[in-house]
Amino acid sequence: MASPANNDGLKWPKLLHNGTETAAIINSPIKPLDNLQTNCTEHMLIWQWDESTGWQAPEIRPYGPLPIMPSASVLQYATECFEGIKIYRGHDDRLRVFRLQLNCERMRKSSLRVGLPEFDTAHLESLLMQFAALEAEKWLPSGKTGQTLYLRPTHIGLTAALGVQKPRQSLLYAIATLLPGFTTKGNGMRLLTSPAEAVRAWPGGFGNRKLGGNYGPTLPAHDAALQRGFDQILWLFGSEGFVTEAGASNFFVVWKTKSGEVELVTAGLDNGTILEGVTRYSVLDLVRSNRDKPSAWHHRGHTLPPLTATERDFTIDEIQDAVKEGRLIEAFAAGTAYFIASAEAIHHRGKDIPIPLPTAESASYAQLIKEWLSDIVFGVENPHKWTKEISLQ
Amino acid sequence: MASPANNDGLKWPKLLHNGTETAAIINSPIKPLDNLQTNCTEHMLIWQWDESTGWQAPEIRPYGPLPIMPSASVLQYATECFEGIKIYRGHDDRLRVFRLQLNCERMRKSSLRVGLPEFDTAHLESLLMQFAALEAEKWLPSGKTGQTLYLRPTHIGLTAALGVQKPRQSLLYAIATLLPGFTTKGNGMRLLTSPAEAVRAWPGGFGNRKLGGNYGPTLPAHDAALQRGFDQILWLFGSEGFVTEAGASNFFVVWKTKSGEVELVTAGLDNGTILEGVTRYSVLDLVRSNRDKPSAWHHRGHTLPPLTATERDFTIDEIQDAVKEGRLIEAFAAGTAYFIASAEAIHHRGKDIPIPLPTAESASYAQLIKEWLSDIVFGVENPHKWTKEISLQ
Repeated sequence: MASPANNDGLKWPKLLHNGTETAAIINSPIKPLDNLQTNCTEHMLIWQWDESTGWQAPEIRPYGPLPIMPSASVLQYATECFEGIKIYRGHDDRLRVFRLQLNCERMRKSSLRVGLPEFDTAHLESLLMQFAALEAEKWLPSGKTGQTLYLRPTHIGLTAALGVQKPRQSLLYAIATLLPGFTTKGNGMRLLTSPAEAVRAWPGGFGNRKLGGNYGPTLPAHDAALQRGFDQILWLFGSEGFVTEAGASNFFVVWKTKSGEVELVTAGLDNGTILEGVTRYSVLDLVRSNRDKPSAWHHRGHTLPPLTATERDFTIDEIQDAVKEGRLIEAFAAGTAYFIASAEAIHHRGKDIPIPLPTAESASYAQLIKEWLSDIVFGVENPHKWTKEISLQ
Repeated sequence: MASPANNDGLKWPKLLHNGTETAAIINSPIKPLDNLQTNCTEHMLIWQWDESTGWQAPEIRPYGPLPIMPSASVLQYATECFEGIKIYRGHDDRLRVFRLQLNCERMRKSSLRVGLPEFDTAHLESLLMQFAALEAEKWLPSGKTGQTLYLRPTHIGLTAALGVQKPRQSLLYAIATLLPGFTTKGNGMRLLTSPAEAVRAWPGGFGNRKLGGNYGPTLPAHDAALQRGFDQILWLFGSEGFVTEAGASNFFVVWKTKSGEVELVTAGLDNGTILEGVTRYSVLDLVRSNRDKPSAWHHRGHTLPPLTATERDFTIDEIQDAVKEGRLIEAFAAGTAYFIASAEAIHHRGKDIPIPLPTAESASYAQLIKEWLSDIVFGVENPHKWTKEISLQ
């Protein structure tokens, strides 16, 4: 039996005194925890649903605690999902959002996966753009070129009933925050492969949806990795050691295949264990659409061979072999929060697999792709019509 | 794109008016949903933890909404787990709790599985017994022989931070309720096997812990089963069709083996996909300890052959074969909330597998085991010292 450090042994106060129950009942309000670690903006978007009346009028309210019943579905059965979206202040001083419709559509799928109601995704998109415009005025003001505001839409089941059933009431809300800078200790991420007995997601499960339930159970492994000096877990799957995701991001490898082709590979979506990342889609789309444009592949004074993008199962052994044979070129994680983050090592079963890490001067696929994406989100170009401008009307 | 029924198309009100943001901000408090479906008692037990100060003094408070920050870990990353415990008003009018230490120990393991802090399980046991005594005085008063009060301890991560990390603050609370009666439409449960593409839990996952994240993702399949007139999903695993759990309960089959032995079989715990149910343990323990006591197997004027209890992987095909060959005797689900609930059919891939259902008069293993357990929880006997008496001191 564990005894927490700050626990004075067996001298617990009796909850009840003298048989008079009311004497011990504390009636002062429960104080919500202060928002210690994440500084959210002053407002939140609130959109409530009830089975009998449907979606109610959305509201903007001051940021603050949500009153949630102790028996609420979200607290008992994890009827919850979320999204992560960035608002970008462009080089032209305009505000943009990137492929927001993909987030809204994914949130609809995530909601249905845990019995939460669906909604009109175009309505959600419109509401989020209005909320973003409101918050950006103060937190991402004119002149903050190259900076971002992070939006976190969340959908939770509110029904206060202990029976395991679909919620009859839900709340879709969005908050906004300035994310802290992402600094890793070295230049690139150091990844630790997941323990042999730990599996993040499974075919037929829900690893492809952005559910809260995909994250909580990864915390012990993640924390153990941090304690050992690593940045993220590289989640493997199956006895074959298929490479799936890095932390909460999609994972990409650039290597020369045995036949000499330069390939960008990432896990496929077929078996439903991989999050359908918006950045993931965009990296693949950009690599494919630039494949036959030689001018796209100039980087830092060099011309890189164009990449072939491949989605397939690949294993940690293939990475090891590529390193041994000098075929591994780069590896990186991709996601909205961390954008494109290069890896410098994968620690696997007691041994480091070193990954070539681009310097600030060297030609690099990861950096080139990051620049392509940056040019889009910050408004230098918009070849695929992936961004929309936001304005306070 | 989906359009909810009560949604008036594209005429959404603008959230913001005339560029003056304050005009649209609603400052009235958000009203918590009423506790519509589950009638909880008036109090709740509150026990808060903070990384810097440890576990604080527990409190009894009026039942009511918890103020939870929108960015709280439990709402974003499902850092949550729970337990279900019954308080029994015995034939001797005394109050008892059944193997509470197993629930407290399981809650410790569940907490650790999602990065929540551990606690002294004996302290939790003591707090829950005091809380139960307080609530039972009104809700399970003297004279309510054979009735129960249901306790729901819940542990949630409160830290308001969007980074995916272990919570630094948590809240362990308990509420109490009178569960509605459990009535199935017929005499026994009608189970529907899970769709081929759906998996509840997997080896290396967290199906063996009582996490919220194990329940939300089952809701779409459960709801589809209810719509089709079934009571619960019978969750299968793998291409072999291993039988795992029925709804949120453990599942047992009684059959004659091909060698003629009468066997009670349930899925084993080795691969971590099965909830370590307290009722499950107790059924197995009672069958094993009564194995060699011929007097234990008299039921309704008959003498039943003693059961051999086996924990192992078994498949839906084995059940089908046993039915075809006339070897299947009974099947039932077991759990705290539903106790022992017999099944009368399993619908699998378009066909009903009929399960023999005991009548009110017939000798039945399920009913016999239920009577053994009832005698213990309601104080007729206490052979294994599994119950503790509760009293208001």
